[in-house]
Amino acid sequence: MNRPRPLSGFPEWLPPGRAVERHIIDTLAGVFALHGFVEIETRAVEPLADLLRKGETSKEVYVLRRLQDADRTGYDAKTLGLHFDLTVPLARYVLENAGQLDFPFKRYQIQKVWRGERPQEGRFREFVQADLDVIGLGELPFHYEVELPLTMIEALTALGVGDFRVLVNNRKVAEGFYRAIGIDRPEQIDAVLRWIDKLDKIGPGGVAEGLGAEGLSPAQAQAALDLAAVSGSDPAAVVASVRRLADTAADAVRRAGDTTGGALAAVGNGLLEDGLAELGALLEAARRRAPGAVVADLRIARGLDYYTGSVYETTWLGQESLGSVCSGGRYDSLASAGNQSYPGVGLSIGVSRLVSRVLALGLLAPSRTSPAAVLVAVADEATRGDSDAIAARLRARGVAADVAPTAAKFGKQIKYAERRGIPFVWFPAADGVGDQVKDIRSGAQAAADAASWTPPPADRRVAFARGG
Amino acid sequence: MNRPRPLSGFPEWLPPGRAVERHIIDTLAGVFALHGFVEIETRAVEPLADLLRKGETSKEVYVLRRLQDADRTGYDAKTLGLHFDLTVPLARYVLENAGQLDFPFKRYQIQKVWRGERPQEGRFREFVQADLDVIGLGELPFHYEVELPLTMIEALTALGVGDFRVLVNNRKVAEGFYRAIGIDRPEQIDAVLRWIDKLDKIGPGGVAEGLGAEGLSPAQAQAALDLAAVSGSDPAAVVASVRRLADTAADAVRRAGDTTGGALAAVGNGLLEDGLAELGALLEAARRRAPGAVVADLRIARGLDYYTGSVYETTWLGQESLGSVCSGGRYDSLASAGNQSYPGVGLSIGVSRLVSRVLALGLLAPSRTSPAAVLVAVADEATRGDSDAIAARLRARGVAADVAPTAAKFGKQIKYAERRGIPFVWFPAADGVGDQVKDIRSGAQAAADAASWTPPPADRRVAFARGG
Repeated sequence: MNRPRPLSGFPEWLPPGRAVERHIIDTLAGVFALHGFVEIETRAVEPLADLLRKGETSKEVYVLRRLQDADRTGYDAKTLGLHFDLTVPLARYVLENAGQLDFPFKRYQIQKVWRGERPQEGRFREFVQADLDVIGLGELPFHYEVELPLTMIEALTALGVGDFRVLVNNRKVAEGFYRAIGIDRPEQIDAVLRWIDKLDKIGPGGVAEGLGAEGLSPAQAQAALDLAAVSGSDPAAVVASVRRLADTAADAVRRAGDTTGGALAAVGNGLLEDGLAELGALLEAARRRAPGAVVADLRIARGLDYYTGSVYETTWLGQESLGSVCSGGRYDSLASAGNQSYPGVGLSIGVSRLVSRVLALGLLAPSRTSPAAVLVAVADEATRGDSDAIAARLRARGVAADVAPTAAKFGKQIKYAERRGIPFVWFPAADGVGDQVKDIRSGAQAAADAASWTPPPADRRVAFARGG
Repeated sequence: MNRPRPLSGFPEWLPPGRAVERHIIDTLAGVFALHGFVEIETRAVEPLADLLRKGETSKEVYVLRRLQDADRTGYDAKTLGLHFDLTVPLARYVLENAGQLDFPFKRYQIQKVWRGERPQEGRFREFVQADLDVIGLGELPFHYEVELPLTMIEALTALGVGDFRVLVNNRKVAEGFYRAIGIDRPEQIDAVLRWIDKLDKIGPGGVAEGLGAEGLSPAQAQAALDLAAVSGSDPAAVVASVRRLADTAADAVRRAGDTTGGALAAVGNGLLEDGLAELGALLEAARRRAPGAVVADLRIARGLDYYTGSVYETTWLGQESLGSVCSGGRYDSLASAGNQSYPGVGLSIGVSRLVSRVLALGLLAPSRTSPAAVLVAVADEATRGDSDAIAARLRARGVAADVAPTAAKFGKQIKYAERRGIPFVWFPAADGVGDQVKDIRSGAQAAADAASWTPPPADRRVAFARGG
């Protein structure tokens, strides 16, 4: 076999990189558990028909075929595909097991997903997602729309790689505002959201042009752009800005007489007011519980076509080029069966993308490659059993220990430890001298007893230091 | 959507089952790390051509196709498949990264694998494997053939679900013995091993018939069956039995004059002696380090066609119907590139099969479904912020805390905790009474301070008790 080359889009890490990924996953999971979320894991496959319900992602799905069926074409009800997110599987899992789950069902799930996209910087074909959702049975209180992003901020902050900020918008605010200025056909609202979503890419001019092509008057298009420019973390100020804008814009639209289709909705319509109340409450709670972590940004439109309340994106401060590292929102019906619906709110972290950036910048590095805190040396192969016995006594007390691979010269055995970052080397008793343990960083050596010795606290486990 | 039904062969667990699986995985990983093994994770896919090198498993491979290519037939060098074990990926990873790994490379890997087999009791199409291997650069000392099964026994025993026994054989013993009785063409040796592997299924009569069909004389067939009957944990006794058998059988074969092909090898040939020395050393070390855990069983033939030294299977005592829960062996060349070879020794646990049995028998159950140790009650929605603040103070000290979903009557909030097994409910201060915490199992209630209260040690984390 020739030396294999990496597959583009399928990231893999060397052992220190994997240790960082594991540390990140464990840290996230630890915070989720601290908040009372339970872990589930779903199978990697779903019936293709279920995966294709979300039309837009259909091209990205990997279809599975058993090798003996490799010449079969097309697909049927039994054809399976790899999941491309953890939301479709969650909805299916909830429906399948509804009778045996406790609602509200607070769950987290950290798994690989696959997308057959063209790989590019930060875009993978196989990657890990960490999803956090609360699913209600029939109803789900609004306060979970506050709890979820705050839990995510806490989890991301716990990584120790920098600060994160959740940008929020609310479907009700956007739709209520659009209705107030005479945009009220659902497909037109969705079209406006799609154009607003392109703001960062094509700028206000391009978006205005696009909105015009959708049938919006210049006054309506300007109002939509003005709404998208609203941002801030002060609840009262944000709410007041939107109300003022809605007033002014509705007047302008009315004056111009250019409402397109449908009756011009009253300013202060119920939907807009509901949305503003939610947005305000979210900002208010966030200001109290995690000052600076949550900011309203009414330009956020991604997902507003299927979310029904709050919608979230997350910026890693200083790493804005990465895009949103954690996104999600509220859906009134994550799943439904018969007349039972399951509303939910959730967010999803793109773990692989985060890990990839952390490794590229060297932001976290393990204190050693081997989990062993101590290497037990072997004087000669005839006494390997003694070294094994020492290692066993250390391990019995939770001290991770490796044993030298060969009875080479001690210098070579110390090199084995050094290369792996193992801080201590243990020399079994010999020639009337008892067991000795040496800190190979300082050179300090002392008598030690395998029944009681423990490394200093800082060396007990692999630690993850923030790099330069 | 109608209520979805499970997919046969793709196991999923409810939250308590997943908690058991997670506990089992963490326990195994913990023991592996204690022995100085590093974790890696490989991508789920490999080029199909690499997966098909092991011809026998080809039918089980799942081929991936992007949806837009679903009508493409056949496959080419770029076609990908899901890995069906963790050995092929390990070999590829080692070759790909050899320059950046430290050898001997001690690694563990716990991941899902996929096989398109017909699902049946204990046979899954998607399942988790836990692999432990040591890979050398050019050479790998024999003592790792002792360390690996003993580490696995320690890991399995740590699960607390019963006792396990590793059954060992050695390719050199089998091949050396067969050569001693005149069976020396490699394809004939492999054929004999395949028949011996059927012993449990078809019995000695069937195997003797099969061996006859392969060209073995009755005396040779009998000798092969006699060898397969050798078992025991006493090193000297096992070695002596095999030597005595080889002597007798070689005599019988010689007397009958019925050696088929090749010269009759001398009894005590080097290969047999090497193999017996290894087998004896393994049993000797195991007797000292884990009495009763390792037993020679020369009937073990699975994998002897590709392993080159020790070979292992593992019986879960009392659950023999499950078959081997952990198998593996030594390969002189796990991988090679140019004239550099990478010998290895490893074992693999079928985690999903183990978990499935543990759950079916109720051998392990989590002490609670929610990771939360305490539920903070909410008196009314206006004071939810106070409850959130209490939960935050508890979490800051590592106490997992949930907050009631609604400000329902306290009785209903207690029910929420009960259903999830959360042992404590916290009542925020009200009406001149300070914060109170109640153990809902005993009913005991006491004043408490969120800045200092911790649950008793037994309630701090989810525990896994051995069930009936």
